Amino acid sequence: MLELLNLPTAVETPRGTLVIRRANRGDLFAIVSLLSDDAVSASRGDTASAEDEAAYRAALERIIGDPANELVVVVDQAETIVGTLQLTLIPGMARRGSTRLLVEAVRVANSVRSSGIGTALMKWVVEQAAHELDAPLVQLTSDAARSDAHRFYRRLGFVDSHVGFKYHVAPKA
Amino acid sequence: MLELLNLPTAVETPRGTLVIRRANRGDLFAIVSLLSDDAVSASRGDTASAEDEAAYRAALERIIGDPANELVVVVDQAETIVGTLQLTLIPGMARRGSTRLLVEAVRVANSVRSSGIGTALMKWVVEQAAHELDAPLVQLTSDAARSDAHRFYRRLGFVDSHVGFKYHVAPKA
Repeated sequence: MLELLNLPTAVETPRGTLVIRRANRGDLFAIVSLLSDDAVSASRGDTASAEDEAAYRAALERIIGDPANELVVVVDQAETIVGTLQLTLIPGMARRGSTRLLVEAVRVANSVRSSGIGTALMKWVVEQAAHELDAPLVQLTSDAARSDAHRFYRRLGFVDSHVGFKYHVAPKA
Repeated sequence: MLELLNLPTAVETPRGTLVIRRANRGDLFAIVSLLSDDAVSASRGDTASAEDEAAYRAALERIIGDPANELVVVVDQAETIVGTLQLTLIPGMARRGSTRLLVEAVRVANSVRSSGIGTALMKWVVEQAAHELDAPLVQLTSDAARSDAHRFYRRLGFVDSHVGFKYHVAPKA
């Protein structure tokens, strides 16, 4: 389904024209670096440890092979990956049968934060991707500790109408 | 992927043994009735209006045809549908490549609310379905207005660590 996304696509930012494209297997280390370059993620175990490489590689294969998911990266003029996010298209009965577009794992490199890249990426999601996928509702959750991110999403027009719950499944005895 | 779920399955509740099974096309009206039998959903347009039938029917087809999604119903001894929820399996890079199980649109019939059916359904999700699908993390969002539901999820062991944001996409001009 997400093959419907018109990618790669150029986006304008205060740092010049960047390109949003589908992630590929060669992007593994850059994406894991973006995840670990974040205090909240690191506290959940995303530390780019070498022993986790196989788990991340398998996860990237699952995402690439799943027609309902797309992992995208945004690259600068030097082809350096400076941001990433994941999209999941979810059919549903509620809201008169509305399909939702879920956004997960939004990350922008620390070195270029607050330079408009996150805004360009999220505007692409709500102004282009959601239309290309015919999804009237875009949703995401953000850790309660990320107050800067909450202000960022509100500025973009997101409404914090919901509480996000997580349950950590106990390993099978 | 969700064909891995071991369904139908019997669950014990204070109202006796109920059965959780996959929804099928014949369940359309019962599911839409459950959605509309809820003040928050009704305020979002789920009023079981006849003119929305085609939209709901198309949504049910999309869910049934999507290997990453499963719409389930719980039925009583008279085969009456008394509850429903939707599961979506989402591969991801974060949390060391963890696959997540998203729960959406949890509804129990008003007539049998607070009788343990919701608890049985959600315990099935976190204690059985998550294991069958190898998903270490179960997540959901709940409307901020649903304080009873929040207490219910906390009692089950869910942690309200996140803020849930929604964005309503403007129709294309």
